[in-house]
Amino acid sequence: MAPKGLDHELLNENVKKCQYAVRGELYLRASELQKEGKKIIFTNVGNPHALGQKPLTFPRQVVALCQAPFLLDDPNVSLLFPADAIARAKHYLSLTSGGLGAYSDSRGLPGVRKEVAEFIERRDGYPSDPELIFLTDGASKGVMQILNTIIRGEWDGILVPVPQYPLYSAAISLLGGSLVPYYLEETANWGLDINNLRQSVALARSEGITVRAMVIINPGNPTGQCLSEANLREILNFCFQENLVLLGDEVYQQNIYQDERPFISSKKVLMDMGLPLSKEIQIVSFHTVSKGYWGECGQRGGYFEMTNIPLKTVDEIYKVASISLSPNVPAQIFMGLMVNPPKPGDISYQQFVRESEGIIESLRKRARIMTDGFNSCRNVVCNFTEGAMYSFPQIRLPPKAVEVARKAGKVPDVFYCLRLLEATGISTVPGSGFGQKDGVFHLRTTILPAEEDMPAIMASFKKFNDEFMEQYEDHRGYSRM
Amino acid sequence: MAPKGLDHELLNENVKKCQYAVRGELYLRASELQKEGKKIIFTNVGNPHALGQKPLTFPRQVVALCQAPFLLDDPNVSLLFPADAIARAKHYLSLTSGGLGAYSDSRGLPGVRKEVAEFIERRDGYPSDPELIFLTDGASKGVMQILNTIIRGEWDGILVPVPQYPLYSAAISLLGGSLVPYYLEETANWGLDINNLRQSVALARSEGITVRAMVIINPGNPTGQCLSEANLREILNFCFQENLVLLGDEVYQQNIYQDERPFISSKKVLMDMGLPLSKEIQIVSFHTVSKGYWGECGQRGGYFEMTNIPLKTVDEIYKVASISLSPNVPAQIFMGLMVNPPKPGDISYQQFVRESEGIIESLRKRARIMTDGFNSCRNVVCNFTEGAMYSFPQIRLPPKAVEVARKAGKVPDVFYCLRLLEATGISTVPGSGFGQKDGVFHLRTTILPAEEDMPAIMASFKKFNDEFMEQYEDHRGYSRM
Repeated sequence: MAPKGLDHELLNENVKKCQYAVRGELYLRASELQKEGKKIIFTNVGNPHALGQKPLTFPRQVVALCQAPFLLDDPNVSLLFPADAIARAKHYLSLTSGGLGAYSDSRGLPGVRKEVAEFIERRDGYPSDPELIFLTDGASKGVMQILNTIIRGEWDGILVPVPQYPLYSAAISLLGGSLVPYYLEETANWGLDINNLRQSVALARSEGITVRAMVIINPGNPTGQCLSEANLREILNFCFQENLVLLGDEVYQQNIYQDERPFISSKKVLMDMGLPLSKEIQIVSFHTVSKGYWGECGQRGGYFEMTNIPLKTVDEIYKVASISLSPNVPAQIFMGLMVNPPKPGDISYQQFVRESEGIIESLRKRARIMTDGFNSCRNVVCNFTEGAMYSFPQIRLPPKAVEVARKAGKVPDVFYCLRLLEATGISTVPGSGFGQKDGVFHLRTTILPAEEDMPAIMASFKKFNDEFMEQYEDHRGYSRM
Repeated sequence: MAPKGLDHELLNENVKKCQYAVRGELYLRASELQKEGKKIIFTNVGNPHALGQKPLTFPRQVVALCQAPFLLDDPNVSLLFPADAIARAKHYLSLTSGGLGAYSDSRGLPGVRKEVAEFIERRDGYPSDPELIFLTDGASKGVMQILNTIIRGEWDGILVPVPQYPLYSAAISLLGGSLVPYYLEETANWGLDINNLRQSVALARSEGITVRAMVIINPGNPTGQCLSEANLREILNFCFQENLVLLGDEVYQQNIYQDERPFISSKKVLMDMGLPLSKEIQIVSFHTVSKGYWGECGQRGGYFEMTNIPLKTVDEIYKVASISLSPNVPAQIFMGLMVNPPKPGDISYQQFVRESEGIIESLRKRARIMTDGFNSCRNVVCNFTEGAMYSFPQIRLPPKAVEVARKAGKVPDVFYCLRLLEATGISTVPGSGFGQKDGVFHLRTTILPAEEDMPAIMASFKKFNDEFMEQYEDHRGYSRM
């Protein structure tokens, strides 16, 4: 009988070939084990609330009131909600036409986009235009939309860091483009060497690929580094020379754990470079409510800001956004609250500062506990997490382990991570899901388990790892590299 | 200078060529006029809350509590929330791991998918498997995901009704496939003639196109008809003969205004047909929280159910969904509430019934007022809205009006709708945005303006239309058809 429309053999090949390791084999196995009753520590995805991080109180109060606007007329409302949350809910409702149940403009509510522009102006010290800011259902949706606008076919290439967050490889596969990798230098704390970039572009060109855009993830995912101002300037100059759009994944800009390495936006660096470049280089930068001390992943809120993008292109992006009618409105309110948090003097200010600083301080400590923990393990080395939410240790697998893995039909780091999962319940993502140099192995874990659980988790990891290494090391000849 | 990556000339041609009239030229002009201070009646999009429909109280109470779970520990909570809303909020929070701020599984919360399956079982009288139900950010996202799974290139065709909701034409363009139109019969109350389908498929085949799926919109958008059981059986037989996946856009299944024409799901009709067909024909059906008496458009919640789709394909769809991590969680709760509303005996039951019946009753009246209003206008004929939220009158434009429009560089119905907008503030969508037979013109309007405003709106329409016809009719020879 002829195959039917949704039989596997007839599907879009781009759908079949794309891969997304963050919810790949390891996650699926972890979900199975959880169903069987095993306690799983899900560190595969940056999902803070799932690991016990409490939501910030003030924004949740505001959004709850926006969902139930009839409470604003209830004489008892002030027993449950502070006056500034009530005022803020009224403010956001006044920006909608019909509350949270009405589609907004497909770019998002104009009033929230204005608040985003004001936030960017305060952050960078340069003007930002709300007409060039689109709200999205999480940053990922924005990234996919922009890549879809750029990619025409397999001869269009996108420069992507390796290791990378696999949204990029997956989206490029799905859209039928080509991923052009550039390697980050692990020995230079995952820094970006412009010579590597040049080589990557030259190689791609020799294969007939037109490189059209470059992705940076800053702070890095999975690598945790913060790009320096000098490095960002080099990158922008490179984009100018090579005629590339810079796609700045800046979703971890609030997740900074080292004072001497602050976050600097690509747009600010570009504006600091002045004319003519500041009017020439095209940037799209992405942000989200899912990260930072917010961690409101489940709400799916994000934005992108376009710099030096022609209006005709902005109109095309608007048109495509309009096919999905509008990003979800509650998350637009979260975005407004994120870029316009309580101010000194507001009733909720102290609480907001206490909660948000508490989260960042704790993440900073956890980054340290985790890095130190990994570095205390046999055959494991790990750069410090300067930013973002991940630790990306290198696991120096003994040749015997590599051999056993290959015989079992597994990529060696997948083999290691599966063994780790079965032994300890720790659900990580193998480095091969992000890309890594040949013969080098990693895993990615979030730094999100609760601070008080962290020592036990790291002890459990160390016990597993050191026994694993003991089992597979060739004591006759193999030595630590 | 060489064009840059996001310059218009270098963009993905599929992005440039797709069209979405619901937010096209008319909407953009209406937005401009609104900015200039003109009062606009936005009937271009089915967005009930934007036109004053109040949200249902109980679901909003539950979601507000889920957003602010700390209220559940507040001794005053029962002053603002009824006990069943509190209990239901606790229930939904227990289905998440980490509340609304945590990503769910990429298919949606298992507990909500189970509630959806139970709803489908009650509706159709046949089993439904939660593993084959995926929650989505609105139905549109689900439609796009399934079309993306099917379409491999321009030689893959999708049968789409004409007139159609332009999500389909836009998504097919964007994905690089081919739209294969089949015409609905206006004179048969927008019924579907299987002979038309056969002709469409034959014509497409002669052009080298492989027709792979067929879209039905039931109840119809923009056409408002409800497909009969007999018609659905014919359609399913046709899909079997032609080896097509049936994509059932059933988002208006609660919007039914004529008792003798109830909604029947395509899945129920298939199951009623029994073996072997009930195990053979592939169906994906779509639903949403945006329509019905809910109208929670801004929340962006939907689901699709897959019938007879192989597990390997389901896994591919799951993988692609996982790239976007998860549909927004608050709207998943709305979906749970929609499929599992208050029951007799619950504290909120009476209020829920009063509110929801009030909305449907009023829509039923408005459908009648609008149809009658259009039919009272010169050169306008309009089928009754049996279901959905739209009226789709045919506007019989005098040849002189067609000529003037063409000289002004406008499609004639666009010309008419723009004139209507400028004269009355009524923002509609021209029939050409949905597709129509050559030389025949329509407009789509929602039936959503408040019941009390409806007579004035229809009077304003009639005044404009009859003056327009007076202006352009050739009194020497032209007569009403």
